[in-house]
Amino acid sequence: MTTKQLVSEIRKKKSFLCIGLDVDLKKIPEHLLEEEDPIFSFNKAIIDATHHLCVAYKPNIAFYEAHGVKGWEALKKTIDYLNECHPEIFTIADAKRGDIGNTSTMYAKAFFEDLNFDSITIAPYMGKDSVEPFLAFKDKHTILLALTSNDGAFDFQTQKLENKELYKHVLETSKTYKNSDNLMYVVGATKAEYLEDIRHIIPNSFLLVPGVGAQGGSLQEVCKYGMTKDVGLLVNSSRGIIYASNNKDYAQVAAQKAKEIQRQMEIELYTLGN
Amino acid sequence: MTTKQLVSEIRKKKSFLCIGLDVDLKKIPEHLLEEEDPIFSFNKAIIDATHHLCVAYKPNIAFYEAHGVKGWEALKKTIDYLNECHPEIFTIADAKRGDIGNTSTMYAKAFFEDLNFDSITIAPYMGKDSVEPFLAFKDKHTILLALTSNDGAFDFQTQKLENKELYKHVLETSKTYKNSDNLMYVVGATKAEYLEDIRHIIPNSFLLVPGVGAQGGSLQEVCKYGMTKDVGLLVNSSRGIIYASNNKDYAQVAAQKAKEIQRQMEIELYTLGN
Repeated sequence: MTTKQLVSEIRKKKSFLCIGLDVDLKKIPEHLLEEEDPIFSFNKAIIDATHHLCVAYKPNIAFYEAHGVKGWEALKKTIDYLNECHPEIFTIADAKRGDIGNTSTMYAKAFFEDLNFDSITIAPYMGKDSVEPFLAFKDKHTILLALTSNDGAFDFQTQKLENKELYKHVLETSKTYKNSDNLMYVVGATKAEYLEDIRHIIPNSFLLVPGVGAQGGSLQEVCKYGMTKDVGLLVNSSRGIIYASNNKDYAQVAAQKAKEIQRQMEIELYTLGN
Repeated sequence: MTTKQLVSEIRKKKSFLCIGLDVDLKKIPEHLLEEEDPIFSFNKAIIDATHHLCVAYKPNIAFYEAHGVKGWEALKKTIDYLNECHPEIFTIADAKRGDIGNTSTMYAKAFFEDLNFDSITIAPYMGKDSVEPFLAFKDKHTILLALTSNDGAFDFQTQKLENKELYKHVLETSKTYKNSDNLMYVVGATKAEYLEDIRHIIPNSFLLVPGVGAQGGSLQEVCKYGMTKDVGLLVNSSRGIIYASNNKDYAQVAAQKAKEIQRQMEIELYTLGN
């Protein structure tokens, strides 16, 4: 999917919501455990109930890998279902991968070709030749971790590297990478006040923003400092939507929660002239 | 496996060789492609031929993930075979994972419990709460990326953070993490001259050293600057061993190459009084 198509979907749905499909068997409604593939059944029901309210889904790969072969089968079924039935949806493999050049290419092929995700999250620590193999894929997007929403972000990311915080160095350096147009960035909502600085470095890039809601970030603050003329934001919510109920009505309640966020987003888009 | 058991195996075998099981279907002997599971068949033959010459095996997970469900099956069979038939071998999941706390726990369970690896490689960018969930597992080892052997290492790792290179900051900060005794570190052999500085910060920790041979690093240099009184080194070779021949004699030739390295290691251990 091109960035232009993504922006067009955002405008059509008046939503820049990404729903995190972080499926934990301990948290889903018990009756699903009797199904042949409880994870896929859960995802399908959530997708069917919410796809008109969001523009992206983001399975965190750890939740699938935790179940080995069965988890990979559930992940494959989920992405295949999205690609077949909802090709207008932007799909994100939240994998936080990164390795030396030829090995990064293996990961890129796995997620971009075999699974056919539109994008993947990548850790920047190993630098240029660990990131560029992902950037080489046309109309695929590499979402680089810049400033994450967890406490550990203060260990290194916000430390000063030659008088400038490491995450800013990551943003600036990554702009010099080949095919850097295919870059997006993870910026945690719990640090919305950093967004003003970030927009000076990457004025137009899309940001994937976790941490709104459950982790304490404010949607309004994120929009105030982060929104561009082409929106430039994907705001993720996982637990707050998919685990809003663990009864049989879980998909319906998830849709209600998604609708609440979509309405807030509609207001922000209107207020900021988008 | 405890560190003590690993050291004891090194002394018994006079080897600190780790063999990287980075299995690429394009590089293995063609006749294996007719087998039901070519990746596992290849690994089993390599392991059978070399297990007495090395102390560790390190599958890079990207090479398995690239084949989706089938790749995971091959990985599971490989680690099960190692744990059942060669429990004295130290196993490393070269996964370079790292995520926020509860998600890192999912990865830790996947690799330490379900697959039962002795260790996993982890990227440090997300800091403390992304690393500590791995450290919580008794007799399991977390191998943190410090200074990698690729060109991109110079993008951030060797840049100065408050007058000290980022990788040194990673080493120092990680020592303050809970259960830091379970830490080991990746340090590329192509930067052997850095090892002297590194040993000032982490005098006793085990280092996993890629980049000897194919990538140009020198075993002698690595030992000179990196060896401790309890050896403290695992030196990895992948392509130089497993792809030394792509004929039917591949396992035998792999064993010859492994034997050559083991002999060099035996000399280094002797020379440095280990």
